[in-house]
Amino acid sequence: MIRQYAVIGLGSFGLRVLQKLAEATDQIIIVDRDKAVVESCKELAAKSYITDAINPEALTRILPEGIDVSIVDVGGNLEAAIVITNTLKKLGVRQIIVRADSDERGEILKIVGATTIIYPAREAAEKLVPLLVSPTLFRFMPISPSLVLAEVKVPERYVGLTLIEANFRQARGINVVALRKEDGDEYIYFEPKYRMQADDVLLCAGSEEDVTGFTGTRVTGRKIGIGNMLKGIFGRPRFRKETSSEKKK
Amino acid sequence: MIRQYAVIGLGSFGLRVLQKLAEATDQIIIVDRDKAVVESCKELAAKSYITDAINPEALTRILPEGIDVSIVDVGGNLEAAIVITNTLKKLGVRQIIVRADSDERGEILKIVGATTIIYPAREAAEKLVPLLVSPTLFRFMPISPSLVLAEVKVPERYVGLTLIEANFRQARGINVVALRKEDGDEYIYFEPKYRMQADDVLLCAGSEEDVTGFTGTRVTGRKIGIGNMLKGIFGRPRFRKETSSEKKK
Repeated sequence: MIRQYAVIGLGSFGLRVLQKLAEATDQIIIVDRDKAVVESCKELAAKSYITDAINPEALTRILPEGIDVSIVDVGGNLEAAIVITNTLKKLGVRQIIVRADSDERGEILKIVGATTIIYPAREAAEKLVPLLVSPTLFRFMPISPSLVLAEVKVPERYVGLTLIEANFRQARGINVVALRKEDGDEYIYFEPKYRMQADDVLLCAGSEEDVTGFTGTRVTGRKIGIGNMLKGIFGRPRFRKETSSEKKK
Repeated sequence: MIRQYAVIGLGSFGLRVLQKLAEATDQIIIVDRDKAVVESCKELAAKSYITDAINPEALTRILPEGIDVSIVDVGGNLEAAIVITNTLKKLGVRQIIVRADSDERGEILKIVGATTIIYPAREAAEKLVPLLVSPTLFRFMPISPSLVLAEVKVPERYVGLTLIEANFRQARGINVVALRKEDGDEYIYFEPKYRMQADDVLLCAGSEEDVTGFTGTRVTGRKIGIGNMLKGIFGRPRFRKETSSEKKK
């Protein structure tokens, strides 16, 4: 059974979904109120509509029966997202995937019928921030409450050891999946006898605690000693904690 | 050496970065022109400014020397992103991370000085779409041109086999990292003698081709037989490939 898809709202996320989805299927309907946007990508869709989907009658008329998956991205317009989501629910669409920018909005959209909320900004931030606070962490992917995957530069003290000697799994709770060179893209599956080199980057799986412990950085959890940390760096008068208002020139 | 961070523009991505970053460090300066936004999160920053950062003099006056990492998210305002990025480059900020919605914008921002472009919408779409086209794929994370990680439900024919018997690595190019139950969050590292069960979900590493082949779905690559596929599903007259304009009521 071939699935049918509707992309409703071609915001930056909806547009990317359409482009990627079109690589795998032709069963896509697109709906957006902006004519220029619809025209620019109608070749990717089986059927395209220039319509404001916030109108339930119009959306109902457009969508064929048997749409399996809908993706809703109407930018920051919460009212439109709510009305569209609810219309899709009433039409019996099984998967209603809606993009949201904040947890609060996501919760509201779930109540009115969204089956999945996608938070592009949150996901990107969660991947990025650990890399910003650790110089030896190259990538960070939360997978489940108990598992993250991360690219970690081989800690100095393990350089020259084999994976058997390093014994990461027993000693550090770290499962090494593959490795690559720091300046390369290509991953290799290593032999247990391989001796790690200083420019190796390990793709590791483990709990967040074990992985960040392995890199020597604490990524999450509450900060400690705010006052003392601030004193060191933000000690000059103009760095006192306060909000300043700069006037535009 | 403790790093110092500046979050310039508190769009949905900038705000998330701030929230996550504040869990790990206090060395954060925030800048946004919207007073309400700055007020709502000034507790997370050492110093907060209500300023339009598009003004180079204002931004230069605000930022202390020695900012290591800047994160720029001024929403869809390309002009502001360009000017701010370029100002940061001139100030010698080492890492300039800028959010962009499209590849074209990202390329321009790189030219004017961004060291890293983050595409939240694209990343979210790339993770989501494979799950939409495959019922046995639960998660999909592109890691490098040669490696993806994915959660895959155990294909039926492997149920009851051990991992040794299934021989995924040799036979399918698939490296199984861990497994979990379909309705559970907790990953376990399995023993090679473990017999796979129908409700097991495998966390697999492999090339995109091997992983999607393993699930029985082709996720990327150009589609084939558009006409024939369309005939089956979009065969009724009102599904002919065309753009319709629905009028608002």
